[in-house]
Amino acid sequence: MTPATVGIFGVGAIGGSIGLRARRNGARVIGADCDSAALRSGLAIGAIDDVATLDELPHAVEALVLAAHLQPTLQEIERLKHASGSTPALIVDVASVKTPVVKAARGLRNFVPTHPMAGTERSGVQAAGADMFVGRTWAYVPSDGGALEERVRAFIESMGAVPFAVSAEEHDRAVAITSHVPQIVAWCYAKLLRAQGTNAETLCGPVALELLRISGMSPTMWRDILSANADNIEPLLRKLMRALDAYDLSP
Amino acid sequence: MTPATVGIFGVGAIGGSIGLRARRNGARVIGADCDSAALRSGLAIGAIDDVATLDELPHAVEALVLAAHLQPTLQEIERLKHASGSTPALIVDVASVKTPVVKAARGLRNFVPTHPMAGTERSGVQAAGADMFVGRTWAYVPSDGGALEERVRAFIESMGAVPFAVSAEEHDRAVAITSHVPQIVAWCYAKLLRAQGTNAETLCGPVALELLRISGMSPTMWRDILSANADNIEPLLRKLMRALDAYDLSP
Repeated sequence: MTPATVGIFGVGAIGGSIGLRARRNGARVIGADCDSAALRSGLAIGAIDDVATLDELPHAVEALVLAAHLQPTLQEIERLKHASGSTPALIVDVASVKTPVVKAARGLRNFVPTHPMAGTERSGVQAAGADMFVGRTWAYVPSDGGALEERVRAFIESMGAVPFAVSAEEHDRAVAITSHVPQIVAWCYAKLLRAQGTNAETLCGPVALELLRISGMSPTMWRDILSANADNIEPLLRKLMRALDAYDLSP
Repeated sequence: MTPATVGIFGVGAIGGSIGLRARRNGARVIGADCDSAALRSGLAIGAIDDVATLDELPHAVEALVLAAHLQPTLQEIERLKHASGSTPALIVDVASVKTPVVKAARGLRNFVPTHPMAGTERSGVQAAGADMFVGRTWAYVPSDGGALEERVRAFIESMGAVPFAVSAEEHDRAVAITSHVPQIVAWCYAKLLRAQGTNAETLCGPVALELLRISGMSPTMWRDILSANADNIEPLLRKLMRALDAYDLSP
């Protein structure tokens, strides 16, 4: 699906990147955001063509992307379930954890939970880029295997990404190790490194720099995600600690 | 110092990169290595002009680079201390830990311990590149502050790198956190990730990929380095484990 009109709820780094790409694909993109500065920036950098209110947005577009943080995404799903009037042919979210989204969205027509494996340590629409998703895996939780799945796969491909079907439970188990544990390690590591003094910061190699880079991600933005996935993360952190503890430094 | 002749003991990824750069700078480069296949490859990719035996090498060059692993580097330093005949105007090593090198090299004339903050997870001269060090910090342990220090700084600059003076103790404390701890974390992390099954490997973001990349470094190559620096690494691993243990996943 390369929809003619795309609605973006949450015009930040991810929402803005989707908008830039959709516009490049020829779609008309309409943004909604509680933060009017984000909308102004989105218009200025060409990530959206126009703005709408949260009430107007679902009725004005063919595809609707919920690109806000987890809590506002869940709230918007709740609102959409009780909204009257026309529904977009495709609704997706992009939250980094899928079990709570699947649970909240039960009964919401045309909705597919998704998660692009891409991002940036910078936040806001200024960090958006039309090529953010190129070549990246974009996970989605398949529903019926019919027309809706075809639509979501085509939409993901229109973003330059590679669709990957996975259950919400499998997804959350996987990102616990691929994304959430490294994020926590990076924060703990960066704090430890900065406590060592200035020479340590000068003598960084590429790995330390990468860990410092992602330690720049906002812990506030991640708090909801990490606590929603704590059951998967906790046992992995324990295992990592045990492995570090057992590491043999003898010659 | 942009020496007219450079000797490379250990024609691997680092030694080969130094050779490529020195040749591009107009120097004649002579390689020595116990592995004759490395010498052949070094000649084939143009990292060295000629080969010599370990006995011949120090007398044939203006600058001598010890680019082998830690143990052969320490052995070569011992040999050089007892060698008769002419001595290169500059001898440097590039080992990732400096305290044992400084200790071994006491009394070796024209020697400066150094460590370029660059490298690759691939090994062997095939992984060499003339731009390996461009813009990177290259640490050295200053000796007298006189002519020898000027020579080592100029040599480092001729490699495209930024010279950084640091004591051996400070260096080893710094790399424990900037390089050795991340390396151990990467090995433990990669093992944990691979135990999670195939979905985890598909759903990797950039950080997981970077950790997997450096987990490809050979533990054998690192064993000497890590055990030589265990006194600095152990307390940092403990602190990291405590920080991970204390990480609060509640909402």
